[in-house]
Amino acid sequence: MAPIDPDAVHPLLPTPYRFTNGTATLRVDPGRFAFTLAAATAPSEVLSAALARYRRIMFAWGSGSSPATAATTLTDCSVSVANSSDGSFQLGDDESYSLRVAADADCRLSARTVWGALRGLETLSQLVEYSPSDRWYELRKAPWQIDDKPAFVSRGVMVDTARHWLSVPALLRQIDALAYSRMNTLHWHASDEDAFPMGSTAFPALAARGSYASAVGVSAGLYSVADQEAVVQYARMRGVRVVLELDLPGHASSWALARPDLFATWRFLGQLIAEFGARFPDRVMHFGGDEVDASVRAWMREQGATDLRDVYVHFERRLHAAAAEHGKEVQTWADAFRRVHNASAHGRGPPLPRTAIAQEWGRWDEAGRAEMAAVVRSGGRAVRSSGFYFDGGYSTGGRATVWEEVINAQLVPPGLSAEEESRVLGAEACLWGEVADELFLDQKLWLRASVLAERLWTPHATIAAYCHHKPCSFDNRDLQPRMVKNRCRLVQRGILAQPYNTQIIPDRSRWQQCELWLPQNWSRRGAAGTAAVYMY
Amino acid sequence: MAPIDPDAVHPLLPTPYRFTNGTATLRVDPGRFAFTLAAATAPSEVLSAALARYRRIMFAWGSGSSPATAATTLTDCSVSVANSSDGSFQLGDDESYSLRVAADADCRLSARTVWGALRGLETLSQLVEYSPSDRWYELRKAPWQIDDKPAFVSRGVMVDTARHWLSVPALLRQIDALAYSRMNTLHWHASDEDAFPMGSTAFPALAARGSYASAVGVSAGLYSVADQEAVVQYARMRGVRVVLELDLPGHASSWALARPDLFATWRFLGQLIAEFGARFPDRVMHFGGDEVDASVRAWMREQGATDLRDVYVHFERRLHAAAAEHGKEVQTWADAFRRVHNASAHGRGPPLPRTAIAQEWGRWDEAGRAEMAAVVRSGGRAVRSSGFYFDGGYSTGGRATVWEEVINAQLVPPGLSAEEESRVLGAEACLWGEVADELFLDQKLWLRASVLAERLWTPHATIAAYCHHKPCSFDNRDLQPRMVKNRCRLVQRGILAQPYNTQIIPDRSRWQQCELWLPQNWSRRGAAGTAAVYMY
Repeated sequence: MAPIDPDAVHPLLPTPYRFTNGTATLRVDPGRFAFTLAAATAPSEVLSAALARYRRIMFAWGSGSSPATAATTLTDCSVSVANSSDGSFQLGDDESYSLRVAADADCRLSARTVWGALRGLETLSQLVEYSPSDRWYELRKAPWQIDDKPAFVSRGVMVDTARHWLSVPALLRQIDALAYSRMNTLHWHASDEDAFPMGSTAFPALAARGSYASAVGVSAGLYSVADQEAVVQYARMRGVRVVLELDLPGHASSWALARPDLFATWRFLGQLIAEFGARFPDRVMHFGGDEVDASVRAWMREQGATDLRDVYVHFERRLHAAAAEHGKEVQTWADAFRRVHNASAHGRGPPLPRTAIAQEWGRWDEAGRAEMAAVVRSGGRAVRSSGFYFDGGYSTGGRATVWEEVINAQLVPPGLSAEEESRVLGAEACLWGEVADELFLDQKLWLRASVLAERLWTPHATIAAYCHHKPCSFDNRDLQPRMVKNRCRLVQRGILAQPYNTQIIPDRSRWQQCELWLPQNWSRRGAAGTAAVYMY
Repeated sequence: MAPIDPDAVHPLLPTPYRFTNGTATLRVDPGRFAFTLAAATAPSEVLSAALARYRRIMFAWGSGSSPATAATTLTDCSVSVANSSDGSFQLGDDESYSLRVAADADCRLSARTVWGALRGLETLSQLVEYSPSDRWYELRKAPWQIDDKPAFVSRGVMVDTARHWLSVPALLRQIDALAYSRMNTLHWHASDEDAFPMGSTAFPALAARGSYASAVGVSAGLYSVADQEAVVQYARMRGVRVVLELDLPGHASSWALARPDLFATWRFLGQLIAEFGARFPDRVMHFGGDEVDASVRAWMREQGATDLRDVYVHFERRLHAAAAEHGKEVQTWADAFRRVHNASAHGRGPPLPRTAIAQEWGRWDEAGRAEMAAVVRSGGRAVRSSGFYFDGGYSTGGRATVWEEVINAQLVPPGLSAEEESRVLGAEACLWGEVADELFLDQKLWLRASVLAERLWTPHATIAAYCHHKPCSFDNRDLQPRMVKNRCRLVQRGILAQPYNTQIIPDRSRWQQCELWLPQNWSRRGAAGTAAVYMY
């Protein structure tokens, strides 16, 4: 296969919903460039911070050296937002935007919400490219006219802080990477059998006894209340939801270290939901619900219950009710839906409420597709993680999910009505923590999660059109060069994404070796802009 | 499977040739501990530096807090070396040592060579363990009596600086990791079609025009003569050979950027071998020889040659002769051996000299085993890389080499005499650079290369004995806990090895979460002890 010049295609990942572009190259002057807020746009903390942040991101290589060309120069971009509310991004909030960059360098970004403006700023920042040989910034293929919105409302990754504790900067880095991919959900699988690392004002003993901190005898290894608030706030500023998962009842043996009486008291659960539900403002809380094990049996004994299935179904129903009292909708792994659904079908009690979200994680075979179809047909909502487990490779088995499987994935089971399809919310890449600590986190999630971002944001028809040879594979000449550029962007912005295979790029292209032109002071740029890449 | 306590087995990786141990725990006092040189041991720069270095490595957590126990305390270790020559470690040099730590804390390390002493110091450093909860150092399972030597003489990894340039600290980190694994060979695949990054006094244009530095327009991206000397010296101090590979004639199109007349002049090659052969003191130079392509056809046209096979065979024979003039033995990929061997068998000229080393890289099937058998039966030597390509996973195909394949690998083809078997020198894990830059290098090579270290150092009978269920797999209770500890050691020493699957470890064990008790100032500890982990 002939090599592909990454500059031959547009630089955007994901591909926008609709766009046209030309062939002109504009210069961008880092010293003069400014965002201007349209007069009708009300102030917003989130928007102001984003304008300053994206200016830093675009011009990370400093002031450059002004070239002596007569090219048209981009010196400002006008931003207008219809509704400046910026409390917290919630599932289904409008993320659309329009971005125009005219041939005369007139630049206008408009959006209905601050969240849409964030997505548009990311797109603009991907259009502005630094040339290390010229030491200057340029915006190629102008004029641009982009009208953009996502195909799916929920686009996320899951990280697991129970099997390996991840430092706060490592979590913030993933939020950065989500924003750089126009994704919007961090699913924080916080607790599991292995550890309960979440500090709590009402129940401090849970983490004091259940975290790695207590096991190792060090002060790190648990998330203070302030740590948790920092993660939520950092995500809010970037239009990312943080969906907290406290895995119940199957994976909760770490809780029992502090509270052997745990499952006997609904009051305890109510208080826990109240505290964490307030700290994590997302409407959705995740309560696990998979792989029910011995800890439930212990609870059954205390309750005098005899049928495991009935106890579990009872537990899930009460959990949904308890969450609803605190204004929360419940996401669980699909096990919970399946078991309650089966009980209902046999006349044993009501189904889960329609606000329930089932996360599919089994095989995406006929049974898996049928399960998701049943969820949305019954009025529930579904998120797919089947096939998007990114922890494989290098250990027993050796099989890793590859990007081709991600871009070619079918997301909606066949045979649904449009209304039912709309309840397939999207997908999540899951990175379980047994084989991934924070030193290996970035490489395992990215670049593959960026491909999931394309699959979830870009219309399926667009992807089908550039996949001339179906399914999309190693010979694809649209997505692949953009993956190469995107990987460079991620690394240059401090995300240690895995390199894409350089075999497809011309020899000695700057895109083959982007580690050689990282921004100044790169090693001191952590996720938060101040800390080291690794916090230790 | 029940969890395994990593402290239940000995902490050494690789397993020594012969050892006995007890059940006593000695305290080790970081403030008082000193190495003493036996009176008959002559001074050696390599040995002195190693004693200081291993003192730093063992006591990386600082002075600790002295416990108020009556346990016996290790305060010194006597080191004796019969022959203190330390010019450079060469293939086949003696690496044996004896280490005794008595129950009364009498510690004696003796070796024939400084290289053996280095291996023994590594073993001692693995016996001394830091406990983060006690904040103190201990040596468990004393008394120890270890008599050790490697099963194979060549134990290495290959890195590729042609597809991605790797910074000097990244190379030094790999040398560290080799020493920590009692491995002894860094095969430096320096040039390829993609780039020629090696600075040269005689031919500076090769790198000036063929490196990424020229392509990207930055000053990084090539190895100065001083860089190359620093790598060689760093490796010498750790008893590691650096086998330089200049890939000829198949993968040399990057050379032609500077010297289109390259292949027409043997004088050029002689000068190149003279310069690089002097800078890299290892007796072996590697000249590629695989995947012959169009550049050779161009040379054929100039030479008026018509049969590709004859030209190639002629080239390889002359290369061996040219290298011999400079005192060098030639390693190539097995292609060269196969083709010259075939020509010889058909009466077209002599075979390669007996000093030739063939590196097997094809499938380890019947044909692959037969090829290696033919190499050693004809008097040549062989190194196996078949099955040890560590670049797989995450990209097209998705299949990664797993540790079980490494530990269960057959290294010597069946049916050889003992004398023939002795010419199977060992093995090399290869990490090709298309999908691995220096941000992903450590994780891709380690931990799996540590398992290769065990396979190459430890007698096969020992491995067979602890693999009760053959082949060795996920249920192995000897190697797996040592992999867990070894991964912690590597991370704590600055190598970003991939985590081993924590499913096998008890919940909240300190070995599950060793990132929480890294040494102080860890983020500032690079390969050289001063630079950042990443040099940028």
